[in-house]
Amino acid sequence: MAQAHWGCCPWLVLLCALGAWGHPKSVDLTAEDVRNCLISPPYLPVTVVNTTAQLTALRQQMHIQNLFAYIIPETDAHMSEYIGTRDKRRAWMTGFTGSAGTAVVTMGKAGLWTDSRYWTQAERQMDCNWELHKEADIKEDIPGRIVTDRSLTGEPETVPGGSWESYNMALMNSNIKLVSITPNLVDQAWGSEKPLVLSQPIYVLQEAFTGNTWQKKVSDIRSQMQKHPQAPTAVLLSALDETAWLFNLRGSDIPYNPFFYSYTLLTDSSIRLFVNRSCLNSETLKYLNSSCTGSMCVQVEDYSQVRHNVQAYASGNVKIWIGTSYTTYGLYEVIPTEKLIEDTYSPVMVTKAVKNSKEQALLRASHVRDAVAVIRYLVWLEKNVPKGTVDEFSGAELLNKFRGKEQFSSGPSFETISASGLNAALAHYSPTKELHRKLSSDEMYLLDSGGQYWDGTTDITRTVHWGTPSAFQKEAYTRVLIGNIDLSRLVFPANTSGRMMEVFARRALWDVGLNYGHGTGHGIGNFLCVHEWPVGFQYNNIPMAKGMFTSIEPGYYQDGEFGIRLEDVALVVEAKTKYPGSYLTFEVVSLVPYDRNLIDVSLLSPEQLQYLNHYYQTIREKVGPELQQRQLLEEFEWLQQHTEPLSAKAPHTAPLASLLAVSSLAILGCRV
Amino acid sequence: MAQAHWGCCPWLVLLCALGAWGHPKSVDLTAEDVRNCLISPPYLPVTVVNTTAQLTALRQQMHIQNLFAYIIPETDAHMSEYIGTRDKRRAWMTGFTGSAGTAVVTMGKAGLWTDSRYWTQAERQMDCNWELHKEADIKEDIPGRIVTDRSLTGEPETVPGGSWESYNMALMNSNIKLVSITPNLVDQAWGSEKPLVLSQPIYVLQEAFTGNTWQKKVSDIRSQMQKHPQAPTAVLLSALDETAWLFNLRGSDIPYNPFFYSYTLLTDSSIRLFVNRSCLNSETLKYLNSSCTGSMCVQVEDYSQVRHNVQAYASGNVKIWIGTSYTTYGLYEVIPTEKLIEDTYSPVMVTKAVKNSKEQALLRASHVRDAVAVIRYLVWLEKNVPKGTVDEFSGAELLNKFRGKEQFSSGPSFETISASGLNAALAHYSPTKELHRKLSSDEMYLLDSGGQYWDGTTDITRTVHWGTPSAFQKEAYTRVLIGNIDLSRLVFPANTSGRMMEVFARRALWDVGLNYGHGTGHGIGNFLCVHEWPVGFQYNNIPMAKGMFTSIEPGYYQDGEFGIRLEDVALVVEAKTKYPGSYLTFEVVSLVPYDRNLIDVSLLSPEQLQYLNHYYQTIREKVGPELQQRQLLEEFEWLQQHTEPLSAKAPHTAPLASLLAVSSLAILGCRV
Repeated sequence: MAQAHWGCCPWLVLLCALGAWGHPKSVDLTAEDVRNCLISPPYLPVTVVNTTAQLTALRQQMHIQNLFAYIIPETDAHMSEYIGTRDKRRAWMTGFTGSAGTAVVTMGKAGLWTDSRYWTQAERQMDCNWELHKEADIKEDIPGRIVTDRSLTGEPETVPGGSWESYNMALMNSNIKLVSITPNLVDQAWGSEKPLVLSQPIYVLQEAFTGNTWQKKVSDIRSQMQKHPQAPTAVLLSALDETAWLFNLRGSDIPYNPFFYSYTLLTDSSIRLFVNRSCLNSETLKYLNSSCTGSMCVQVEDYSQVRHNVQAYASGNVKIWIGTSYTTYGLYEVIPTEKLIEDTYSPVMVTKAVKNSKEQALLRASHVRDAVAVIRYLVWLEKNVPKGTVDEFSGAELLNKFRGKEQFSSGPSFETISASGLNAALAHYSPTKELHRKLSSDEMYLLDSGGQYWDGTTDITRTVHWGTPSAFQKEAYTRVLIGNIDLSRLVFPANTSGRMMEVFARRALWDVGLNYGHGTGHGIGNFLCVHEWPVGFQYNNIPMAKGMFTSIEPGYYQDGEFGIRLEDVALVVEAKTKYPGSYLTFEVVSLVPYDRNLIDVSLLSPEQLQYLNHYYQTIREKVGPELQQRQLLEEFEWLQQHTEPLSAKAPHTAPLASLLAVSSLAILGCRV
Repeated sequence: MAQAHWGCCPWLVLLCALGAWGHPKSVDLTAEDVRNCLISPPYLPVTVVNTTAQLTALRQQMHIQNLFAYIIPETDAHMSEYIGTRDKRRAWMTGFTGSAGTAVVTMGKAGLWTDSRYWTQAERQMDCNWELHKEADIKEDIPGRIVTDRSLTGEPETVPGGSWESYNMALMNSNIKLVSITPNLVDQAWGSEKPLVLSQPIYVLQEAFTGNTWQKKVSDIRSQMQKHPQAPTAVLLSALDETAWLFNLRGSDIPYNPFFYSYTLLTDSSIRLFVNRSCLNSETLKYLNSSCTGSMCVQVEDYSQVRHNVQAYASGNVKIWIGTSYTTYGLYEVIPTEKLIEDTYSPVMVTKAVKNSKEQALLRASHVRDAVAVIRYLVWLEKNVPKGTVDEFSGAELLNKFRGKEQFSSGPSFETISASGLNAALAHYSPTKELHRKLSSDEMYLLDSGGQYWDGTTDITRTVHWGTPSAFQKEAYTRVLIGNIDLSRLVFPANTSGRMMEVFARRALWDVGLNYGHGTGHGIGNFLCVHEWPVGFQYNNIPMAKGMFTSIEPGYYQDGEFGIRLEDVALVVEAKTKYPGSYLTFEVVSLVPYDRNLIDVSLLSPEQLQYLNHYYQTIREKVGPELQQRQLLEEFEWLQQHTEPLSAKAPHTAPLASLLAVSSLAILGCRV
């Protein structure tokens, strides 16, 4: 799935809002129906939320604390990409439900900063209490516009250290002071109306689905601590997937992510897990060895005690190693600077990024089953779309059903992007029960979806056309495919950063003046995040190493007409080069054929064609037996047809002819 | 020319020394003959300089000022790449003449920090007064090793703001204070032995060779000041090429660069040029309109007065716009922070980077004449190398002679890299009269050279073999050529950064496990710097824009055996894409054919071959008439032979066959 803020760490979202993409939760099908605050009385569409009561309640809290302004960011205390209902403070306060956007409330004004993807949505959801700020950088506006001469505050628990520092920098030459207060004022204002946190059980991931025992992982991290030149005595983990990975535990507190609210303070002699204790049953407590206090015993502490506990630990002769990307200011500020060891990512985040051979096998296996679900859906669509009975929403529901039938399934890994025709040009459109479009043989259909399985998280995008695509659609599709192929088959030196090589996914589009506005891929977890940083092709991603998994997903979007994206997940593997050296390449583990109807074979070089046919052979070998074994014979037949080797001369001829064409070209000296 | 510190701003050289390349002035042909300070008495080769007197003199100065340590950087007060004799303070102090390296002297110790390229040279030139530090980062060593508990000083006039700040950061948690003192203590110690600055005349570049009058350039910069949101009242120019470009003046104070020692303070109502006034004759003074004080009059001030003058100006209600990359701490520190507007590069540096159509035409023309000189040399080599009478040094001298005969010639633009066989694997080897290798038909020969002409600066690298190259040499050469071609013919969106696209120059090498360790190109000036930043393919270069010139220079180096580099200068031009959009590509302006003897045509794709043949056609059209007109008929014949279209089937067949092969492949669908 193309991710909203590929160019941005979650905590840098304020700095680079414009130009990125997002996940509009509802789509602008009636763009005209927006608020008009310039007339009297203002025009407010039915979608608008009256926020007067919320604002009054917050301002009362601010008045009590003598605060001039209050910042309400978009994320939770763990910098999560998906957040639980209890953390949707900004949505409750503003009415605006988009996933990107920061609100600032002063005694006299209220403003929301969001990027262009969400402007219409904001105008449809916010009442006239709110000013919509279209500037890219909220910080630029804080001193001059929102806060003038008093103290500014934010939510220390949900403002990460990094953005806090950047606010502070912006305010440096002003007479405004950024202060950190608890408890959260929005929560105070929300009061009894705030949704209760439903305690979901935390469960142990079976050993068959884990790369190592938690004891082994703890030892590994401690070993990294010992080798570190600055000699940390502890590692503090804030991101939810860090703790889930470390202990091989999973939960259900966050949509699409099998996580539970938690922190971990792993010291050289103790392990403290901050969590809702009531969510752990006696077996899990035993699994965690929680009845003791030794270095391999997990001391279960209450989730709410993390700040206090870290502060107490930090008073000793200690050094705490943190990853700044996922640590909020609320925790950051309780550790004295001289006791902090700061990296962008914690050692757990970096270790987790490289999958061991067992984890690789698990992720590969989940992709085979995921391919079965997607293929079943594609086969079904091929038969049913021409009947005119399928729409984007019902289609997505059926796909979820197919995935749900697969072994080890644990729901979708994100909200399915099921987009027909012009909706696919909105890169993160998702249909709703109320708002959706019918699928048709006259339009392209983009499907970006993924599943959570106990053995792996998947994410795949295919774009199809059941009728007669235009020449331009075919060309654009083929060029996107070439981009996918060229990056997938690239041989590159170990430790090359993804940012350096992602242009190979764009070249074929650039050649004719086309491009796409999003990033080219992101890491992915083993039953963890579908966007698992810091792996990927963005500027802030770590260099590629053997054992990492990343999506590869070029696209092309024609506004108001259609959208194309072809996304696969690939494993970084060693490349066998003619001359010795430490070189890597990708092995694609997503196993669903592309749409032959949209491929203009004449645009492919012999090498690209050869690669594609080899990929199709792999799909046959890996998915074919699975379909046969499950008696999915119609799907098996479909797979055979759709993976028939493509020939340079004519798309639908026999494989032999194609191979001949390739080899004769090679003889003619046609290597790329 | 591949540049020493492509990954580094000059002022960041301390931070990224290891792994980069340089220009060793003398080469390690007798690597064994290095000092041995471990025996008694120490062994010192004849190349060592006795520095006891220098050190004593400097320590006397330090004692007077009560200083614990003194830093001696490698550059001059303008962050120049090439420095005049009077600025070779570090070489005088240490004996070490390498172009990269920083010295630190305390009362008891003396240390030189340089990178691996120069370790042998340093051991051959330094006596046992000096410790050689091989660590990458001098700052890491300062607190613990060199300076312990007293004040540290540097030369404010030759330490740029950036490195000063980074020293300060490194010293932050120590009890060491970095202080700025004048005058320069090395100069004090050097005393009467310091070479006198020879006053070279400063001359006006004829209007035919300039892109605009200085008045127009001044107006342009002032217009940028007016549009700047922070409303600067002045721009301060420190880099020598900034002042030379702004006033269309040239001089001869710096080797290889037609510059004169200078600064400019351009305010909204005045122009102050700091320079050795005696170098300006009455005509130049008149040209500068120097007899008045109005906004378009150039007030000529003494070079030595710049610091005082800027300080005085900064006491007013002003804002001074600087480019931090080229401003020394000595100037930086006299401007109060709140009056500074800091960009990485000054507006002059950024404006100069984009050549207007007249400047483009001038640069193009200089490359035609430069090609004539290089071709004359290659033709001469082809005849004379087999005789066994040519060596690297005499060859380079002859090339200089050929260039000198070209119209508007003003000497070489850098020290010619004329390297035979294994010497070419030392990427910046230059031969000397004493140390050089004979050219031979059994070895590859790498020639990286350039000229200064009144209309443009050139830089070109060709690698040739007059005998029978090995299959590996041919493959490596061809893959380097493919890299050059693939990057040169790339179509990319406007404002793409060079860093993002330079991998296209590496892919063909990566494919088989080969690579090169230097950057892929640098900007170049109109009778200015051969390395004209901030254009290029490095991480700190500005995005590519129409009108920029850059070198494109992939390479491959086999230690102890051979070296290959193919370098062309290219202009960034608009690309005509099939679908409308703002796209750019390169137009190569270097016009010398590659060595057919080293091209394995079977490795080229039809598109690469087509590009190459088109390039050869361009060479014929642009250089052919020039050779004919000059009656260089032998060279004309050579050019025709060496630009004969290459065919996919066999390297030396007729052009028609080649075109046929290309078109038939295209029919077969073989596009890249």
